[in-house]
Amino acid sequence: MAIEHPYLMFLGDAADQLAAKVANGVRMWRPEWCVGQFRLPGCNADLGLPDMTIEEAAAAGVKTIIVGVANRGGIIPDSWVESLVRGVELGMDVASGLHNKVTEVPAIADAAKANGRKLFDVRHPTRSFDVAKGTKRPGKRLLAVGTDCSVGKMFAALAVEREMLARGMKATFRATGQTGIFIAGDGVSVDAVVADFISGATEWLCPANDEDHWDVVEGQGSLFHASFAGVSMGLLHGSQADALVMCHEPTRTHMRGLPDFPIPDLKECIALNEQCGRLTNPACKVVGVSVNTVALGDAEAKDVLAKIADETGLPTTDTFRYGAGPIVDVL
Amino acid sequence: MAIEHPYLMFLGDAADQLAAKVANGVRMWRPEWCVGQFRLPGCNADLGLPDMTIEEAAAAGVKTIIVGVANRGGIIPDSWVESLVRGVELGMDVASGLHNKVTEVPAIADAAKANGRKLFDVRHPTRSFDVAKGTKRPGKRLLAVGTDCSVGKMFAALAVEREMLARGMKATFRATGQTGIFIAGDGVSVDAVVADFISGATEWLCPANDEDHWDVVEGQGSLFHASFAGVSMGLLHGSQADALVMCHEPTRTHMRGLPDFPIPDLKECIALNEQCGRLTNPACKVVGVSVNTVALGDAEAKDVLAKIADETGLPTTDTFRYGAGPIVDVL
Repeated sequence: MAIEHPYLMFLGDAADQLAAKVANGVRMWRPEWCVGQFRLPGCNADLGLPDMTIEEAAAAGVKTIIVGVANRGGIIPDSWVESLVRGVELGMDVASGLHNKVTEVPAIADAAKANGRKLFDVRHPTRSFDVAKGTKRPGKRLLAVGTDCSVGKMFAALAVEREMLARGMKATFRATGQTGIFIAGDGVSVDAVVADFISGATEWLCPANDEDHWDVVEGQGSLFHASFAGVSMGLLHGSQADALVMCHEPTRTHMRGLPDFPIPDLKECIALNEQCGRLTNPACKVVGVSVNTVALGDAEAKDVLAKIADETGLPTTDTFRYGAGPIVDVL
Repeated sequence: MAIEHPYLMFLGDAADQLAAKVANGVRMWRPEWCVGQFRLPGCNADLGLPDMTIEEAAAAGVKTIIVGVANRGGIIPDSWVESLVRGVELGMDVASGLHNKVTEVPAIADAAKANGRKLFDVRHPTRSFDVAKGTKRPGKRLLAVGTDCSVGKMFAALAVEREMLARGMKATFRATGQTGIFIAGDGVSVDAVVADFISGATEWLCPANDEDHWDVVEGQGSLFHASFAGVSMGLLHGSQADALVMCHEPTRTHMRGLPDFPIPDLKECIALNEQCGRLTNPACKVVGVSVNTVALGDAEAKDVLAKIADETGLPTTDTFRYGAGPIVDVL
């Protein structure tokens, strides 16, 4: 896929900051790639980047316009289409995280064709994959797993990659969701792949590499999530993880989207991930816990970390808030 | 989907009996629906049904032509297209289990449109599904699971349905693969669904029903298959199975398609399926083992069944060869 940076962050008329969550994540992890933001009248989101017109972005050398925003009602409004067409005419690619494909908006598709520009719908895999082979391949892999969806698996993986790179280790973040793909410039929306190819797509995503290279794979869902556990299972088998980081959000009272399902016991969740992971890598082991403490004050957060470290016997940190040092130490 | 019977079994120029495996399965389980077979010059398969021309099939009241055969090189040859178009013109629907879609062959699609006939590509889901809710629904469900792919899960489910119906129980076979769909006349190719919707599609497939009704769900893959475990996991969660039947092939030396992977230990496989199944149904339990003894003589088969019954402490039979009685007894 290979999305080229620098990026213009397209916010359109985002209703609020939450609607620009994807753009926010990209800006947080790849600030050096984000040269400006584009906002239409009525936009209530702000990434703290310089506001730019499409023309200014082109002049500033932007290579790709990133549509990292949720649109209302699933329809791409005319005002967005007009701006994106203008961007393509000025030589920029468009990468979108919308459910509705920009490649299926005739005006945008025609403009891209006429101007030789690329369009990326990152939620929708465009290539096909082989069935997973399960064959061990060189290189090391770490996968972020979780007790639930949206507990900070992407943040944990990125924090681990950052810490590894800071220590001079060889590491590559491997993206499996839309925000991650914008951050990596590449990747596969694994949950959008045809079911038979979940682990095959994952094998493709983190291929053979140097023996001392770490692929740091973004996880999805949870083996304990009644809607999405199949995706989590395929990721676990396909990544052939040497190391797992268990991600957890301690204030959550039930599984995301499933009010009748309690959050699983951490130790049970660790045990099941290790058991299933060992099918394709007998050395698979949870090496640490990353706790998302965003809802807690500093003292409270540290109490929770100490409690979980004690309970699991594993290095426990909020990889985003306090860094991934204690986890990378053990690798 | 609702494929109407009676069927004409279309064998084309199948190279050998194995190429007509799907058609064979349909003929075996729904002989009363299969009024004839259609063979082109060079066909080396034979279902033991009366040979019919397309015209004779139409005159005999056939509602649907079933393309239950593997084609060479993935291409639908002109000779097939011609015959299928003729069938559509004579008022029959076409249901195909080919990877290549008959709906994408212009001559067939045009003829279907012009004649108001339906085309079914049963490997390719045509509807979209909701994300699984995980909410308990009325009715009982049994799911066939396995130590590997292709160990007889569909046969076991059909044998259980047959036994239940023979005893006057309410039961419906629910198909999750192409052969099963022809046999049921309906179903979902669960492994072809987008990964996020595996368990959602399964919930749709076996919806709320009478409290004393059994959905008997065809399983796919194995939690221990490195390529397909994600599909198996989603099926297990989506079916909310009260009862699991563990299917096993005792002569197999490694996992299908994965020469480096041994067949899992039966008791370990039972334990993991029960553990994962309890996420959406705390009562989930393996109630019996169905052993595919097709490769064994009668005495040897009975020895193996006794050994496995002893090892697992569960009713153990070859549901196809000896009937599903011992398993239905415990429900």
